[in-house]
Amino acid sequence: MRKFGSGRVRALLIRSFQQKQIRSTSSSSLFSSSHSRFLSAAPAVDFPPSSPPMADHSASRPSPPVTLQNINPKVLKCEYAVRGEIVTLAQRLQEELKANPGSHPFDEILYCNIGNPQSLGQQPITFFREILALCDHPAILDKSETQGLFSADAIERAWEILDQIPGRATGAYSHSQGIKGLRDTIAAGIEARDGYPANPNDIFLTDGASPAVHMMMQLLISSEKDGILCPIPQYPLYSASIALHGGTLVPYFLDEASGWGLETSELKKQLEDAKSKGINVRALVVINPGNPTGQVLAEDNQRQIVDFCKQEGLVLLADEVYQENVYVPDKEFHSFKKVSRSMGYGEQDISLVSFQSVSKGYYGECGKRGGYMEVTGISPEVREQIYKMASVNLCSNISGQILASLVMSPPKVGDESYEMYLAEKDGILSSLARRAKALEEALNILEGVTCNRAEGAMYLFPCINLPQKAIKAAEAAKTAPDAFYCRRLLNATGVVVVPGSGFGQVPGTWHFRCTILPQEDKIPAIVTRLTDFHKSFMDEFRD
Amino acid sequence: MRKFGSGRVRALLIRSFQQKQIRSTSSSSLFSSSHSRFLSAAPAVDFPPSSPPMADHSASRPSPPVTLQNINPKVLKCEYAVRGEIVTLAQRLQEELKANPGSHPFDEILYCNIGNPQSLGQQPITFFREILALCDHPAILDKSETQGLFSADAIERAWEILDQIPGRATGAYSHSQGIKGLRDTIAAGIEARDGYPANPNDIFLTDGASPAVHMMMQLLISSEKDGILCPIPQYPLYSASIALHGGTLVPYFLDEASGWGLETSELKKQLEDAKSKGINVRALVVINPGNPTGQVLAEDNQRQIVDFCKQEGLVLLADEVYQENVYVPDKEFHSFKKVSRSMGYGEQDISLVSFQSVSKGYYGECGKRGGYMEVTGISPEVREQIYKMASVNLCSNISGQILASLVMSPPKVGDESYEMYLAEKDGILSSLARRAKALEEALNILEGVTCNRAEGAMYLFPCINLPQKAIKAAEAAKTAPDAFYCRRLLNATGVVVVPGSGFGQVPGTWHFRCTILPQEDKIPAIVTRLTDFHKSFMDEFRD
Repeated sequence: MRKFGSGRVRALLIRSFQQKQIRSTSSSSLFSSSHSRFLSAAPAVDFPPSSPPMADHSASRPSPPVTLQNINPKVLKCEYAVRGEIVTLAQRLQEELKANPGSHPFDEILYCNIGNPQSLGQQPITFFREILALCDHPAILDKSETQGLFSADAIERAWEILDQIPGRATGAYSHSQGIKGLRDTIAAGIEARDGYPANPNDIFLTDGASPAVHMMMQLLISSEKDGILCPIPQYPLYSASIALHGGTLVPYFLDEASGWGLETSELKKQLEDAKSKGINVRALVVINPGNPTGQVLAEDNQRQIVDFCKQEGLVLLADEVYQENVYVPDKEFHSFKKVSRSMGYGEQDISLVSFQSVSKGYYGECGKRGGYMEVTGISPEVREQIYKMASVNLCSNISGQILASLVMSPPKVGDESYEMYLAEKDGILSSLARRAKALEEALNILEGVTCNRAEGAMYLFPCINLPQKAIKAAEAAKTAPDAFYCRRLLNATGVVVVPGSGFGQVPGTWHFRCTILPQEDKIPAIVTRLTDFHKSFMDEFRD
Repeated sequence: MRKFGSGRVRALLIRSFQQKQIRSTSSSSLFSSSHSRFLSAAPAVDFPPSSPPMADHSASRPSPPVTLQNINPKVLKCEYAVRGEIVTLAQRLQEELKANPGSHPFDEILYCNIGNPQSLGQQPITFFREILALCDHPAILDKSETQGLFSADAIERAWEILDQIPGRATGAYSHSQGIKGLRDTIAAGIEARDGYPANPNDIFLTDGASPAVHMMMQLLISSEKDGILCPIPQYPLYSASIALHGGTLVPYFLDEASGWGLETSELKKQLEDAKSKGINVRALVVINPGNPTGQVLAEDNQRQIVDFCKQEGLVLLADEVYQENVYVPDKEFHSFKKVSRSMGYGEQDISLVSFQSVSKGYYGECGKRGGYMEVTGISPEVREQIYKMASVNLCSNISGQILASLVMSPPKVGDESYEMYLAEKDGILSSLARRAKALEEALNILEGVTCNRAEGAMYLFPCINLPQKAIKAAEAAKTAPDAFYCRRLLNATGVVVVPGSGFGQVPGTWHFRCTILPQEDKIPAIVTRLTDFHKSFMDEFRD
């Protein structure tokens, strides 16, 4: 039942702004749950199970060289709830289940905390894996048995890729931006997607999207006076990276009541507010499709955002890693590069960095750590600095580079692998769409819960209208109310979700992020567990 | 001809200290060549060939959001000569040779600038690649053709590794420290190497050693008041990482005259000097075997270093990525963990981080980006902070994780692959030893050149006693004398080496780093080219 009228959200927004006036610009209150964990010495329960406490050591050593008091305070400040307290507890429960089956009211932990499809049973795309295997061990390429094991077009593509690698050496460091031939393939894929030219020299291949985001934050942030506009809620990589680099997160709020709408009036308001505090705002982060919110931006909305960045002289940092994950017929992904070019804007007009990853999409190859950023509208002098930063880490892993080129150039009609590839791809995407719908409907039935639809990405971000009694109980337990709810959910059902406070939310509202990734046959059980838990939780705490 | 007596080095050391008194602690003068390149807008020749200038853009745009004036000054300050100016020139020459064969007095570029063995023809270890291929495409594991293509023990090991991965999902994010089962294997390998216990919970798997070094620098450095003791000459990853994190590199000089000896009296002297400038020295970096210097530390020297860190409360950052690369019978690699444990020191006594990589050794799998750090003597609270930093990047790539476990647990006597593995390994290491010797002897014959032997690692770091006339010519060309020499060498021979100024050297001395990695059949040609070039260079500039 949708209890959240636009009016109430507005009121809460206004309250939050008033609160922010008297608050530091660290906007720490937006990220409350894991904060306390990392600032206080954490109890044993909070250690990763693989890191048992060594208390006696620190005790018997008078003054260890490294302590919480003398490490980089930016590290202390950094938070990452997606792998925070709740996940650490889940890992411990999993160990306990393994050691002592039946020790909990559930027989398995269901990790709905992170977009990690293959950890929940999603199978990799065969064509992609065939090529990775052949490039890892080229010695078998011309063996007769290989014909029986691998598709002909995979063998052919592996040869093509090897020929793009100097000396066919898949074990060599590549150019710091990535293998030129693979960047050519990616640029061609971007051109095919957008209908506008792409330059392979603008592509920087990276170990997933995260290092690319860190690189841009490191480039743009000199001090806490440099601000980065980020959506609230946001993917905590951004708050973590900004904290690690000592900058200021300038929050702008997505409007939950209008399906997580992104309004330029809100951008403008927050920009002015930051300027009035002496913050020099350098860039705007837009996540499309949204994480954790799942909305897909409309093209005219994107045009407004492009014009806003152009007018305000902001770098547009476009997180487009979910570009393949769109589930609703009335929405479509458009890259910000395509949108800005369609407006007639070129290199001179807009500084735009687009992030892509092999971890998402229908392929979900998280463990391969492949990705790239396309850097446009940046001067050659500055781009040389980015190249230098990339060169300090030499290059990203070659398998990830190859995979990044493959997701941008999959099999085509007529290729031997095309039918199988298409069946695998459509099977995964249509199933994700069904899972998103089923979970969204189940959540909206729950008392005091409202959940926008997942138009894209891999997540639902329901709002829980928690009773005062539950909020008081959380305060007594010295934890955020949504973290209190998620911890209770985990202990009762084995379902792992992430408290909204890890992503940021309108103060006074409470959410959690739940992925849509458990295999379809598990969804009914999750719905039942979630429904039963929520009912008993509300029965316990209803005001 | 060894012209460099201990006396002269001492005199130069003393002069350098006096210079440092009146200099900022950034010790920038130790790294002169690439500095100017990155601080000034570089001429077109300095762009990576893949990044053509877009001058008109920046021209026609009134005020671009990002300029050299408003980016993070730490990025500007950071340098990385191993992929700096000379390499950019080499890439351009290679393009010219490709487009227009015969356009230069050589027919190929020989990259002796970087430890990248497979780029120069070194073949990967078959057993390792078989397993990577099978783990990338497990679907073929139980096919009959697979028996004919892969060794039985590789198939068996692939099954073992897959069973250590939750859900056998090689495409899933792993635990942020790396897959537990692989860390168990690595810990067992460390125990077998050292004869002392290793804890899998102390292992953090990383995309090569570089991200691990960055993580420790980020943890230890809060401001320019935090200092890290680094050898001079050093591998520029350290100076780059310290610059990016805003710390101060506190140099200690290796004694070239005594074969790059590391004397604790020098450590003490530099520590006191830094303290007197208000620098809080946090850690000591030791690279053993040495890069770029190639020396292998004697065990009693290592004991002195351990005691120094213990007494001074410094974290010992041990770069041990060349642990498999020792070429002389009178030297042996001992890990600092083994040495400190053999002294009776445990977790309470010494904070020690050891870095290992799959990029070096006899395997040289640079493109796989695998590695780990073993973190000991760090409190659980601080270790949790390291875990949090690792979790922000989710995990390192799984192929690299698997490879890191394989290099620490290669085939054993009796395994089907053992004979082949041993032949491949010994073939590579014995050839590297011969190449090191041949190049060292060739260099020592040259007029005004002295070169210590490469006891280990992959490099020679000869000292060139450049004539005043050459130094003046370099000044006129606004470049460091050693960079001037290396640029001339490249233009004349196609051989790419890195100027000593990129690693740091005693002021007034000039060196270059040359890898020993070109295949053996190319060594005579390199020696001839180098000898002829050096003779003509000296004839042109001899005083």
